[in-house]
Amino acid sequence: MRTFTLLAMGLCLAGLPALAQPRSAGAPDPKLIEDVVVANRVLADLGVVDGFGHVSVRHDKDPNRYLMSRSMAPALVKAEDILEYDLDSTAVDAKGRALFLERFIHGEIYKARPDVKAIVHSHSPSVIPFGVSKTRLQPIYHMSSFMGVDVPVFEIRDVAGPASDLLVRDGPLGVALAKALADKTVVLMRGHGSVTVGTSIPQVVFRAYYAEMNARLQSEAIKLGAVTYLTAEETAASAKTNDALVMRPWELWKRKVTKPE
Amino acid sequence: MRTFTLLAMGLCLAGLPALAQPRSAGAPDPKLIEDVVVANRVLADLGVVDGFGHVSVRHDKDPNRYLMSRSMAPALVKAEDILEYDLDSTAVDAKGRALFLERFIHGEIYKARPDVKAIVHSHSPSVIPFGVSKTRLQPIYHMSSFMGVDVPVFEIRDVAGPASDLLVRDGPLGVALAKALADKTVVLMRGHGSVTVGTSIPQVVFRAYYAEMNARLQSEAIKLGAVTYLTAEETAASAKTNDALVMRPWELWKRKVTKPE
Amino acid sequence: MRTFTLLAMGLCLAGLPALAQPRSAGAPDPKLIEDVVVANRVLADLGVVDGFGHVSVRHDKDPNRYLMSRSMAPALVKAEDILEYDLDSTAVDAKGRALFLERFIHGEIYKARPDVKAIVHSHSPSVIPFGVSKTRLQPIYHMSSFMGVDVPVFEIRDVAGPASDLLVRDGPLGVALAKALADKTVVLMRGHGSVTVGTSIPQVVFRAYYAEMNARLQSEAIKLGAVTYLTAEETAASAKTNDALVMRPWELWKRKVTKPE
Amino acid sequence: MRTFTLLAMGLCLAGLPALAQPRSAGAPDPKLIEDVVVANRVLADLGVVDGFGHVSVRHDKDPNRYLMSRSMAPALVKAEDILEYDLDSTAVDAKGRALFLERFIHGEIYKARPDVKAIVHSHSPSVIPFGVSKTRLQPIYHMSSFMGVDVPVFEIRDVAGPASDLLVRDGPLGVALAKALADKTVVLMRGHGSVTVGTSIPQVVFRAYYAEMNARLQSEAIKLGAVTYLTAEETAASAKTNDALVMRPWELWKRKVTKPE
Repeated sequence: MRTFTLLAMGLCLAGLPALAQPRSAGAPDPKLIEDVVVANRVLADLGVVDGFGHVSVRHDKDPNRYLMSRSMAPALVKAEDILEYDLDSTAVDAKGRALFLERFIHGEIYKARPDVKAIVHSHSPSVIPFGVSKTRLQPIYHMSSFMGVDVPVFEIRDVAGPASDLLVRDGPLGVALAKALADKTVVLMRGHGSVTVGTSIPQVVFRAYYAEMNARLQSEAIKLGAVTYLTAEETAASAKTNDALVMRPWELWKRKVTKPE
Repeated sequence: MRTFTLLAMGLCLAGLPALAQPRSAGAPDPKLIEDVVVANRVLADLGVVDGFGHVSVRHDKDPNRYLMSRSMAPALVKAEDILEYDLDSTAVDAKGRALFLERFIHGEIYKARPDVKAIVHSHSPSVIPFGVSKTRLQPIYHMSSFMGVDVPVFEIRDVAGPASDLLVRDGPLGVALAKALADKTVVLMRGHGSVTVGTSIPQVVFRAYYAEMNARLQSEAIKLGAVTYLTAEETAASAKTNDALVMRPWELWKRKVTKPE
Repeated sequence: MRTFTLLAMGLCLAGLPALAQPRSAGAPDPKLIEDVVVANRVLADLGVVDGFGHVSVRHDKDPNRYLMSRSMAPALVKAEDILEYDLDSTAVDAKGRALFLERFIHGEIYKARPDVKAIVHSHSPSVIPFGVSKTRLQPIYHMSSFMGVDVPVFEIRDVAGPASDLLVRDGPLGVALAKALADKTVVLMRGHGSVTVGTSIPQVVFRAYYAEMNARLQSEAIKLGAVTYLTAEETAASAKTNDALVMRPWELWKRKVTKPE
Repeated sequence: MRTFTLLAMGLCLAGLPALAQPRSAGAPDPKLIEDVVVANRVLADLGVVDGFGHVSVRHDKDPNRYLMSRSMAPALVKAEDILEYDLDSTAVDAKGRALFLERFIHGEIYKARPDVKAIVHSHSPSVIPFGVSKTRLQPIYHMSSFMGVDVPVFEIRDVAGPASDLLVRDGPLGVALAKALADKTVVLMRGHGSVTVGTSIPQVVFRAYYAEMNARLQSEAIKLGAVTYLTAEETAASAKTNDALVMRPWELWKRKVTKPE
């Protein structure tokens, strides 16, 4: 009886994709929820996000689901604010709460990049100037070797036309952004911000922070004259080394935002 | 009897405009007082104001009145420091307390711009250099789209002559400043600071903060080479989107300055 | 008997000026001690001083005495650390405590400038670059109008030769510095720092802070192109206005460093 | 019996240098442990180190041993995290804890420089740009006179080839770095960071901090035009003076990180 009803509902909802409420993949590992909550607070504490920006993690029980907070300032996120989304970025159960307009960034990148397990979108300040100039963001030290030697820039005007509000506010724009990201770890968004991807929450937070640091230091270095950047070989070797070290700053950052006030 | 006396006083005071104490429009919504107090502390916390600068809100019971603190550092403002002013910037009841020399900024803009409900005047640091150079402040990302593509600069020397103290210290200077602002949201003041206007306290604080951020980021971007600014169409679309989002950072900023210490 | 002994000692010490312990002018107004202690902590809180730098005030009972801490980090200064000095910068009663090597900055300026009641010496960071380049520090906004249009630079190499340690470590170097300061409010010291003078503790702290702010903002403005500086007439008018407002930031700054932790 | 066994073990281990556990030089002065713990927290508080970077001190009982934490974020270091190493950078008793990959920086410099008693390795931000450009780091004020007029840059590519991960991860690379440092106090590492050496913990922390400050200020000064740097004679005289003053900021910094929270 119940099965029948659900099937009927499923058939019925198939014609109403925008209203369809996807099924939950079940409760994720509580550790994953904790990590994404801590990541929100860490990114705010590090100045990578302010009142805006978001971080998500792929569901551990189902690669076709991801976890991210409802629409709110990252510094205020708690476990009860974390929602489950399918890869079309429809919330499993929004309970009437507002969602991020740009959740499609996450869903479409998770579709296009099976290797990606965590994503940060931010307007981190030092990165913005590199998104609006011809100067490319490049790694000037080993901490940002994960960027590789070529950081792409996504020009939304090419896809959304000359009168967009610059937001990745639907699936097709998310697809275009994922295409610009390609197989890289960072993509800049002209006049807007950037997206960083990784294989875990600690790693993607590390990357979002050191992309910002690199932008700040590269900007200073350029003013001093010709810059020696890391070579492709150096970035590859260094990124491998650093991947084994991401828990060191993570433990520090986590401690700072979780200690009793 | 009492009515007669008041009328007689009114007639008498009509000949003494500088001494005339305007009538109160009555108690404003307590929420408005709370918001303007919080705004003072938020702006200080964000570094938009230091010991100087002020924020006002138009009275909800009478468009010919506005609310602003007595002359004091914004970070220290409490509800009892908020005074009511008419649009000539005369306090309804100053009780002997010192008033801001530049309150005419507020009164004259409220006269000239019926759409404006809240105003911030500050010396926010990154904006200052744009007021003294030929480089125009322009939106480099969506957060500052409210500025539009043309931010005017008010040169007080053109109005007050070569020996002013740079302050908007009377009505005619306020009128000139309001004229320079025209229908925009921000006006820079050469050798002094800037004024930001909005339709609510959360919106004007958002604007004052992101005007400062834009100045800081634009300054960095210019050093990297030619900059792609937002187009007029993009600023229009983006500003509309952002107007619906101003409560998100406001809740965060408010939380920071109101949590028990 | 006692008088005779003291007189004999006085005669004896007259021949040993370096060892002579000057007489005290008596206890200063406790308010003055409190202000100089607060000024030390405020200047540290504002980043004008770090582990180095000092602030003094002329004694209210005797213009030939001044008050300043023993040699220590400003942020740690308490009332019991304040010593009395004569204008040769000999401590009235050092009680074996170490003195600042550069106390002669204070004594010699108090000698040369009867109008000066308070002095700050610091290495405030943004000012340093202006002391080592040909670009002159100039007021770009009204807050720094006290500087006037010409901020002198003291080149110690001209007086101490090519192998000095850059410190104003004796009376003659203090005399040379006071001569470079002339009738101004600020003098930069090449490869070292700066000195700011004023007529009160709140005013000199205001000046030390806004000299630093001006340097930071002027440096940014120069990168944007030709800068419109305040004219001599504007600085004069504005400085007069600001002198009446120094208590506003002072109350704020004082509150920050004296609130219970 | 026991002596015999230890001797036998010694002979045995002589053939297995990588696995040999060196003998302890005995318990160091507890003050030294405290100082190196405080130095870790001070360097983090000053922004010289973040999640990465390390500080060591030569053992007071044996010049062939040094003390440094296990691999962890400096801000979290406690006395129990401090390990003893021989100059080949083998831990006396690691107890299974992870060691810094770059501990060879310390061991090889202690070998090459008997005068050095304390070493800091960091990625302090303002110094990075000077390691990747042709502009040399030079003292622009007396606080950084310890650097002398020539700060060398270590290009690891010359030693490790084009595909290194930029880390000084073995003895030979440590030897090459020590050779680049020569008899100086600071050496920059291209695309990586810097190393500062000194004769005590307070002095090396002072140097690491003011090398960072100098880089920041020199970068600003260069933008203002031709810079007057300290001469060799001035750096020599000033460094001697400053060496007697390092306890002043140390007491301040120590207070900040050790006060009850």
